[in-house]
Amino acid sequence: MGLLDSKQALESSPGDPTGPRFHIEDIFPCVDSGRYAVKRIAGEIVDVWADIFRDGHDVLAAALIWRREADATWRREPMQLHGNDRWHGRFVPPEPGRYLFAVEAWTDQFSTWRKEFKLKRSAGQDVTLEAREGYDLLLQLLPSDAAARHLADTAGRRYAAELDADVLLDDRLAEAMTAHGARQDLTVSLSLPLVADRERARASAWYEMVPRSQSRVAGEHGTFRDCIERVPEIAELGFDVLYLTPINPVGRINRKGKNNAVKAQPGDVGSFYAIGNEHGGHDAIEPQLGTLDDFRDLVSACHRHDMEIALDIAIQCAPDHPWLKQHPEWFKHRPDGTIRYAENPPKKYEDIVNPDFYCDDRIGLWTALRDVFLFWVGNGVRIFRVDNPHTKPFPFWEWLIREVQTRDPGVIFLAEAFTRPKVMKGLAKLGFTQSYTYFTWRTHKAEIEAYLAELTGYPERDYYRPNFFVTTPDILPVQLQDGDPWLFKARAALALASSSNYGIYNGFELIEHEPLPGREEYINSEKYEIRTRDWDKPGNIKDYLKRLNGIRRANPALLQTANFSFLQTNDPNVTGFLKQSVGGDNAVACAIALTGTPKEFWLHFGDLTIGPENDRRPVRAVENLVTGERHLLEWNGLRVRIEPGRDPTLFFRCEV
Amino acid sequence: MGLLDSKQALESSPGDPTGPRFHIEDIFPCVDSGRYAVKRIAGEIVDVWADIFRDGHDVLAAALIWRREADATWRREPMQLHGNDRWHGRFVPPEPGRYLFAVEAWTDQFSTWRKEFKLKRSAGQDVTLEAREGYDLLLQLLPSDAAARHLADTAGRRYAAELDADVLLDDRLAEAMTAHGARQDLTVSLSLPLVADRERARASAWYEMVPRSQSRVAGEHGTFRDCIERVPEIAELGFDVLYLTPINPVGRINRKGKNNAVKAQPGDVGSFYAIGNEHGGHDAIEPQLGTLDDFRDLVSACHRHDMEIALDIAIQCAPDHPWLKQHPEWFKHRPDGTIRYAENPPKKYEDIVNPDFYCDDRIGLWTALRDVFLFWVGNGVRIFRVDNPHTKPFPFWEWLIREVQTRDPGVIFLAEAFTRPKVMKGLAKLGFTQSYTYFTWRTHKAEIEAYLAELTGYPERDYYRPNFFVTTPDILPVQLQDGDPWLFKARAALALASSSNYGIYNGFELIEHEPLPGREEYINSEKYEIRTRDWDKPGNIKDYLKRLNGIRRANPALLQTANFSFLQTNDPNVTGFLKQSVGGDNAVACAIALTGTPKEFWLHFGDLTIGPENDRRPVRAVENLVTGERHLLEWNGLRVRIEPGRDPTLFFRCEV
Repeated sequence: MGLLDSKQALESSPGDPTGPRFHIEDIFPCVDSGRYAVKRIAGEIVDVWADIFRDGHDVLAAALIWRREADATWRREPMQLHGNDRWHGRFVPPEPGRYLFAVEAWTDQFSTWRKEFKLKRSAGQDVTLEAREGYDLLLQLLPSDAAARHLADTAGRRYAAELDADVLLDDRLAEAMTAHGARQDLTVSLSLPLVADRERARASAWYEMVPRSQSRVAGEHGTFRDCIERVPEIAELGFDVLYLTPINPVGRINRKGKNNAVKAQPGDVGSFYAIGNEHGGHDAIEPQLGTLDDFRDLVSACHRHDMEIALDIAIQCAPDHPWLKQHPEWFKHRPDGTIRYAENPPKKYEDIVNPDFYCDDRIGLWTALRDVFLFWVGNGVRIFRVDNPHTKPFPFWEWLIREVQTRDPGVIFLAEAFTRPKVMKGLAKLGFTQSYTYFTWRTHKAEIEAYLAELTGYPERDYYRPNFFVTTPDILPVQLQDGDPWLFKARAALALASSSNYGIYNGFELIEHEPLPGREEYINSEKYEIRTRDWDKPGNIKDYLKRLNGIRRANPALLQTANFSFLQTNDPNVTGFLKQSVGGDNAVACAIALTGTPKEFWLHFGDLTIGPENDRRPVRAVENLVTGERHLLEWNGLRVRIEPGRDPTLFFRCEV
Repeated sequence: MGLLDSKQALESSPGDPTGPRFHIEDIFPCVDSGRYAVKRIAGEIVDVWADIFRDGHDVLAAALIWRREADATWRREPMQLHGNDRWHGRFVPPEPGRYLFAVEAWTDQFSTWRKEFKLKRSAGQDVTLEAREGYDLLLQLLPSDAAARHLADTAGRRYAAELDADVLLDDRLAEAMTAHGARQDLTVSLSLPLVADRERARASAWYEMVPRSQSRVAGEHGTFRDCIERVPEIAELGFDVLYLTPINPVGRINRKGKNNAVKAQPGDVGSFYAIGNEHGGHDAIEPQLGTLDDFRDLVSACHRHDMEIALDIAIQCAPDHPWLKQHPEWFKHRPDGTIRYAENPPKKYEDIVNPDFYCDDRIGLWTALRDVFLFWVGNGVRIFRVDNPHTKPFPFWEWLIREVQTRDPGVIFLAEAFTRPKVMKGLAKLGFTQSYTYFTWRTHKAEIEAYLAELTGYPERDYYRPNFFVTTPDILPVQLQDGDPWLFKARAALALASSSNYGIYNGFELIEHEPLPGREEYINSEKYEIRTRDWDKPGNIKDYLKRLNGIRRANPALLQTANFSFLQTNDPNVTGFLKQSVGGDNAVACAIALTGTPKEFWLHFGDLTIGPENDRRPVRAVENLVTGERHLLEWNGLRVRIEPGRDPTLFFRCEV
């Protein structure tokens, strides 16, 4: 039986008599007991809470400690007791990166002595001996900090000379001893990981486009130059992420034809998800798009318009990807020596093969895949949309994201996983910065509200950053297949207003809506062919999207997802909610029609309050962000009207 | 960068590429991420749930593994998928003790092959190569289990000879390969601790008595012989734990007088919480009570009546406790050389001093305190009520309880802590088998129901076993100070029916109710003087208690606390609930009046169902456990009447 040292970590085994004096429990924020990092934004306050207690009635003190994962030195912030043994502290991670934080608690012996001394003296007890004990304690706990030590030395000398207990009760001395005196029973919690991302991780508006479809000449393969021409227009619409489907050379072996035909016809361009041919693989560019220099020019053009490129990375290889010859050991061979196509039996994907992540040369393969990301980072890309991450090993992603972010903590990873809920959440936990969602299929009020409640509630809000796409090249949801312009507007508004990360896929603004019959997919999908569009086609909703994005940018409440409250509406086909900015200085109420008929209804604010945390008040008035009209609330609500044909949404800035 | 081995523990660092293939999350049951043990009863089923998933679409398999903490070998139980990636398994800890359990998951490669093979063959694809792959897999995953290996060998030989794929698809082969084939991607969760207690930890009815007050001769110091005389009567009342206040020699120095007077008068017996005098300390017996042999006789008398002794251990010393002379180093000395009395400034407890748990000879002190418990265990005591554990260090208790239970896992510790909620819960987590509660002060319907919801809900029910005392020598709650017999009956019934561990303090059955004016304490408390009572005093409620305890013993539903559901009553002064036995074979509905006026009301069962988990049905009829009357439910409810003056409770056995 070995016994105790005063500084102990909670890691000690249960039942070990060297265990810590304090219980430090239920630390917030925390994902899966600290197995995964909490997500926050650099420069923003991180509030930390913990239950802290020990035996007896001594005065306790606690601190929040934090550091960058790579640093050796902890910083310390005081914690305050808020009641019921729950303590609070806060810190601000100054820049993007990985952090650790933990909670320290100790017995504040000098304050304990001081409190008891005062109680006894007030009760008229003889406290001569107690004064001497305070003096002894002062010497025993002598602070290391110079100023505090000076205070303690001075008080000690004066007490020794005058035996006047009052010099030991000085308020400044008490503060100095609490902050800097030797810390008895020091207990340190497990340290918890936190990732601080840059602001665009919290708020981003994505415009997805297929580079080869950007030529203005019908049937001609688009180039990066064509893309560059479109940048001002897309920036003008208010988007800040220009997301390109894969730009790599497209495989020729088993190339798919139009509408996913098994055999390509001469001139067919193939699926851009069949990565690689004789021109190179994941770090090469399809020659018809242009050169690496052209790509860099596109990156620069975006930067000039405060936009960023997001690249689509699909870890799969066309049969003519160079790796199949250079590294046959990275692929699983069948008994006849061939490499297996990707498949989801009985479906086969003959134009791609998957690497074997657990092949004998795992180190080589994983490193090469990491280097693909680093190659594009080196060429100005700091956002990656990762295709189907749920079909690759989780430890691979956890390792890769860490490897990349160690070199550039500003790199953002969006997980394109449409799979089971726990798998999608698992990917977010292990490190994906943003995640695709089921938003596309949430159309009725009850299912929209249940899903928003899930994503903006705990624990999801601490690790899962939704990115609401209204459509994707793979998904044309049933409700948009009629091509009702009001519904396209409503879906974009709902995505943008509820999630601060959202996106559209090009063509959405043109109300493209023709499906493969019976499927939730586009007919003549540009995944398999070149499309040429008139980007100013009559009936487009570009002005509407521009107005929405303008409201979004002007209202910080819409630039975050989690500070979310539902508003009551007495119409089953209108959803209403209120969002507040991180600092509480901006609040926006939204009401969005879910069916096309005109509606007149009450929008009720209930007992919601807005404003900074120390001064929260009920909403008293609102300003319509489109018309500029101002309304006072009546009975905590507003009587309002929506005519979806004109505009399916209402946006109000709230005032107290 | 070191890479992966197929067998990996989840303990590996985040981001480490040697991380496990599977996510095993949200394991139930689990207290504070496994820092503390889940509490269960030996011989009863432990249901274990976990979220288990990996990348891709392979067939998964999972097992629950468990062992006694002291054993080296894990046992393995299969787990089944219940949907939404949640898996279930169960095990039964055969005897009291500490256990560990964990979850294993692996890729079932042979089943994956089999599933895909069948899909492809059904789709008419050529599967010649696939069959060969299945054969190769069979050889690669060859099971170690003899019977399974025989099946695999046979199938392999037949396939090699006949090239008939069907021999690889045999159901028995599939089962054998799943259960015993080599397990790819094996991932093992952290192991979680569990304590299995004996049955009396789950269900116990305590009768607390002060041994020195058990003489039938007025003013005479009671003895163990007097206690033995009372055993048949108390057993007849239906109690199964006879809890004795401290039986150690009572200190003489600064002995307290009657009603806690600072100075004792000649003949005063002092507080039995001032432990120790010249006759010995915590392992000695107050000579006026008798000898150790007498005590052993009392233990035996109890056993003959299926009762057990619970001893009260108070870790504090009278100034004449032998340890002050033998081990002055175990106590903190003041600057003048004296030892500080226990105090809670400005209050002083001059008749006791506390040991210094962190003195230089901590090992000696802690060991001596442990040996006090072991001494009494050696003399037949297996239940301890620990006085004020919250004023002694938590690591001490965690260590001590483990030390004692390692020697006898049947030892039960009840924490007598009336303090802040998280401290009380903290003590339960670190190892106390049962805990005192706020029950005494929960009197109105809303507060009773909120408290029962908290204690029977998660996570509390997994570690906190309430013991509801209606009164204690320290607590005569306000509501009982009027001495209404119906209310004494109602409180006992409420304690007994809601908590399977409950207790009364002697005198309760005699409706003793005279308080110190303005306090929730008894006047002339026998903590400071000898009381002599007529145990058959007119007006006593012994017959009522006997009936209650009889109902309790006959209905397993009342012998556990957690399987608890509220029943709706349309009277704000009646609380109703339904309890079910662990196996589901017994269900009891209770309604208890909280005020004294007659009541007629509906008792509604809503959509509750009863019965074993695979055959749960609505309640259709009930039998009154007092009158034997049987009633069919109407509209899922009963119209009933309570006349508190006659009986403030209704107990019904429920039928489907």
